[in-house]
Order: sequence, then C-alpha cells, then structure tokens
Amino acid sequence: MTINRQILLVSRPTGEATLDNFHLAAPELPELGDGQVLVRNFYLSLDPYMRGRMSDAKSYAPPQPLDTVMIGATVGEVIESRNPDWQPGDAVTAMFGWQEYGISDGSNLRRLHDTSVPMSAYLGAAGMPGVTAWYGLNKIIAPKAGETVVVSAASGAVGSVVGQLAKRAGCRVVGIAGGEQKCAYVVETLGFDACVDYKAGNVYDALRGAAPDGIDGYFENVGGEVFDAVMRNLNAHSRIALCGMIAGYNGEPIPMKYPSLLLTQRVKLEGFIIMEHLDIWPQALKELTEAISAGELRYRESMTQGIESAPAAFLGLLKGENFGKQIVRLV
Amino acid sequence: MTINRQILLVSRPTGEATLDNFHLAAPELPELGDGQVLVRNFYLSLDPYMRGRMSDAKSYAPPQPLDTVMIGATVGEVIESRNPDWQPGDAVTAMFGWQEYGISDGSNLRRLHDTSVPMSAYLGAAGMPGVTAWYGLNKIIAPKAGETVVVSAASGAVGSVVGQLAKRAGCRVVGIAGGEQKCAYVVETLGFDACVDYKAGNVYDALRGAAPDGIDGYFENVGGEVFDAVMRNLNAHSRIALCGMIAGYNGEPIPMKYPSLLLTQRVKLEGFIIMEHLDIWPQALKELTEAISAGELRYRESMTQGIESAPAAFLGLLKGENFGKQIVRLV
Repeated sequence: MTINRQILLVSRPTGEATLDNFHLAAPELPELGDGQVLVRNFYLSLDPYMRGRMSDAKSYAPPQPLDTVMIGATVGEVIESRNPDWQPGDAVTAMFGWQEYGISDGSNLRRLHDTSVPMSAYLGAAGMPGVTAWYGLNKIIAPKAGETVVVSAASGAVGSVVGQLAKRAGCRVVGIAGGEQKCAYVVETLGFDACVDYKAGNVYDALRGAAPDGIDGYFENVGGEVFDAVMRNLNAHSRIALCGMIAGYNGEPIPMKYPSLLLTQRVKLEGFIIMEHLDIWPQALKELTEAISAGELRYRESMTQGIESAPAAFLGLLKGENFGKQIVRLV
Repeated sequence: MTINRQILLVSRPTGEATLDNFHLAAPELPELGDGQVLVRNFYLSLDPYMRGRMSDAKSYAPPQPLDTVMIGATVGEVIESRNPDWQPGDAVTAMFGWQEYGISDGSNLRRLHDTSVPMSAYLGAAGMPGVTAWYGLNKIIAPKAGETVVVSAASGAVGSVVGQLAKRAGCRVVGIAGGEQKCAYVVETLGFDACVDYKAGNVYDALRGAAPDGIDGYFENVGGEVFDAVMRNLNAHSRIALCGMIAGYNGEPIPMKYPSLLLTQRVKLEGFIIMEHLDIWPQALKELTEAISAGELRYRESMTQGIESAPAAFLGLLKGENFGKQIVRLV
C-alpha cells in the first residue's frame, strides 16, 4: 500500500492567498489499470500562473476546481507500467500537479531524451519558463543587436533566460530584481550589463542610468510601479512582451499610470500565454537544451523539500522571496 | 498689398488650452521670389494632434515654437506662380497652418487630380484622417468577417471611416459617441450596427448589450474611462489600434484601470502615427477616394467661417463639441 501525499485547493483567496487555502491529503494509490503507468514525481514546479487558477475571476484558463489537486508541472520516473510504450526507469515530464505520484494512460507524458541536462531543468530553463522567455523575446520583442532590452523578475525562471538570450542577440541587457543579492547574481553570474534593485526605490532614475539610450524592448513579468517606471523610459517603436503581472495577482488591479505613452512612443505590446504557441516549442526547447548543455545558459533553483513545503514556498514566490526557479523536491 | 491673417501660438497651456494661447496676426504678404508659388487656402483642418504640439512635453513630434503660425493641413488653390510646374487654378493640399495664404517653392504641395471628391474632403475622409482610419483598421486590427469592431469618437473624422470600412469587411460595428444626436447619425447615416452614448453613463453595460459576443477589435481615439469600459469587454486575442487619447490631452495623464486584461485576454496593442507609414498612403487614398466618389463612404463636416474662428473651434473639438470633421472655411 502506497500513500500519495498531495496538496488540494480547499478555498479561494480573498485578497492575498494564504496557507488556509491549501490542505495536505494522503490518499492511497489505487491499483494500476490496463494501459496505465505509475510515475514517481521527483520535482514539482511552482509558477506564478497558479495564483490565477486559485481565483474564479475571468481569465484565460478556467479556475482550478475546489478540493482537487493543485495544478502544476512535474518531472519524474516511471516506476510501474501496464502500458507497453513505457518502462520503469523512463524519465518523463507531465502535469501531475502538487502530489508525489501520478497515474496516466501515457497520453500526457513527455519522454526526456537528453540526459546532459539535469532533470529539474525541464521545469525551468529547459521547460515552460524557458520557452516562455524564448517566445516573448524572439517573437514579440525581436531585438536587434545594439538595442537595449529590459526584463523584470530578472533572477527568476523566465527573466534569467530572457536576459541571457538577449545578450546572445547582441543587446544591452538590464535586469530588474528585488535586492542587492539578486542584482549581483544577475550581473555577475548571468552576465547582464546592469541590474536595477526595485527595492532600493526610484526605479525610474535607476533605469535612466542603466539604460542611457532608452529602452527598446521590455519583457514584463511584474506589472505595477516597475512597469510605469519602464514605460517612462521607452524609446519610440519599442516592443513590450507581456508575460506576467505578479504585482497584482494577490489583490486589487494595479492601474497603468501613463497609457498615453503607448501612443506617443508608438509601442507594440502583446500579451501572451505560452501554451497557445505550441508550434514553437520544439525549436525553442532544442536551442535551450543545447545552450544549457554547452554551459552557455545558466540558471538558479530555489528548492524546498517535500510536498508539504509547497504551499509556503508558493506564497513566498508570490512575494519574490524565492531566488531563482522555485522547485519542490519530492524525493 | 494683401493681408494674410494668421493664428500664432503665443503661450503654452497649463492644463486646459484657452483662447489666450492664440493670437490673430495680420502681416502683409511678401512679394513672390523666383520659383515660388502663392496659394489661397480655402479650408483649414483642425485635428486633435495639434493639442500635443502646443505643449513642450516629450512626444513624437517637437513642440510648435512660440510666436509662429499654428501647424495644420490646408487645401486651396494656386493664385500666383513664379514656378513653371504650377499654374493659377491648380488645386493643392499642403501644411500651411492656420493662415489664409501660403507661399511655397512647390516641394511641399500635393496636387489634387480627382475633382469627383469635394475639396474639403481632402482634409477628412480622403486625407490624413481617412488614411489613419484605413491603417489602424487594416494593418493593426485586421478584422475578419463576423468579428465585432468598436470605435470611439465614432462620428468624427477618423472614427466614421473606421466603422464604415469595418462594415464593408463584414464585421459587426459598434460606435461610441457623445450624445443622442451623434449616436443616431452613426447608426442611421453611417450604417453602424449600434452606438453607445458615453454621456448617458455606464459605458460598460451599454457595450455589453451592443457587443454581446465581446469585442475583437478596438480603434481608440479617446482613452480614459471609455477605454477602461472597452477593455473589460475584450475577447481573447483582440487587437487595439491606439490612434488618439483625446480625453487626456488637456491635463493630467489618465491611468488605465485594468492593464492585466492585456495579459489575460492576450491582447495585441499598437500605438501609431500615420505620418510614419507613408508607404500605405497611395493605396489607402485610392480606396478612400473611390469609395467617396461612389457614394459608399459618407462623412460629415463641422465648419466654422474665417481664420479668426479657428481657436474657439479647436477648443470645442477637444471637448467633443464638433459633430463630424472640424474644418475652418477661409473663403
């Protein structure tokens, strides 16, 4: 008899999400049926989009139903199979959610071939966050060498990839992150040209200094005041890839202070959801895994231990307390 | 000796523009030099963009220098020429500004060939406003038949063309205008499917009723609360052509209340200035003049008489007091 510990969403937040919204359950695993596969999840990904699913406000995806396992990407290994296509030991990614095991008929599993990349990277730079960075940068911002690209949440799973890809494209790259430690990492380890610490105040002036020629491309993960400060530094014909607005996820909508700049600077802005662009995934994943294998694309993980740690780690992520891609280790 | 009455900008507005910002001057016309052409302006165009030139805030164009003739498009006739390329009687458009006459070396004159279109139309539906409508609709919104397109300032020079072109493209078209009279015109004369009177309050609910399937394309001339109400009715993958934000031209910037909708609805938004897209002018003007000649594109003019009427007419335009394309008749 195997216990499968899992985190359920049991109530919706009013304002800030809290630990009370989650519940640790520990059901037994059922026997496998014909054609089924049992996967032991090694790592669970925690991502900002999950906050949206906790609410029942209108959004691009239906809300997570109450009393079900929280949605989430996982990576792990097949440990039992009654399906001829899958063998114990096969490494797979899936969307099993916040739990220790997953059962599948195989249709929603993706096999991991490239063992030169650490398994957990498939939840970050070699997974959805990496592809998100790749799409927004290449397909929306489409930077030219010599242009200045700015990215918020620069030390995070998406932002760190955006900046490194923009550097490879020959741009001046400025990150925005919270705190000296993250900023030091962004410049010294990731190789950005500069980083603005939004917690130090006056983001507008700091950006002016870090991007003296103005901003041509902006990859937005944060929203709120950081967004306003960036907008006031935009050049004519700049492009904004709108990927996330985590600053407003926990409460009231945060207005954009100067929307008329979108007109006077002739800005092109595009909001996107990476799951709607499945056509570019193969190319993006190929480039990302090659760059990681070659040591040319660096990333950092913020790891907690055990499924029971997921709710607190997730709430920390919403407050920017993580440093790098937030992952829960389940083994 | 001919007097050329003209309106100068003599001070910059602080907040609302006022009559005091303008001054009527009456200098004598100089003798024509070799190669020069004298044009009698018949009509002067008044357009919202002029408000931006009155201020010295950072914008896409440099501010109008003080104590010079206000910028503006004109249409008129050559009355004297010392240039072999131009003859008295030639009809021309130019940017002579707010004055009764203009002198040119010919390089900035555009000859009007098509006499099937009234001369004043070259300042409206067959001129810059018409091309603006054509570009934003076709190149940014790119509507598909069956989609719903909304346009603000719907009875105005730009909005009226946007809606009629969208109808020709097979869309459901909803206008937004100020007052019952303008709304009746938009539906009954221009042929829009519906029109929302923003002065009647609750634009959000009215739009929900007028666009029951949601909004796929929005052509923005206004900004402010109207924009917020439209945004809350946007469909996924909708497009916004950002052409003007007249609501904020006279004072403090007006925030956008729900910028996160740009992300959740995966909106594509583009601010544009039609003078930066000269490549599309010939095609757009051809289509527009043909449609006007064929009686398939209707427009309305709001005309005042005499150059001295321009400042008050312009201030009225900023408040939406005009009804149709605002023009000053100079003859």
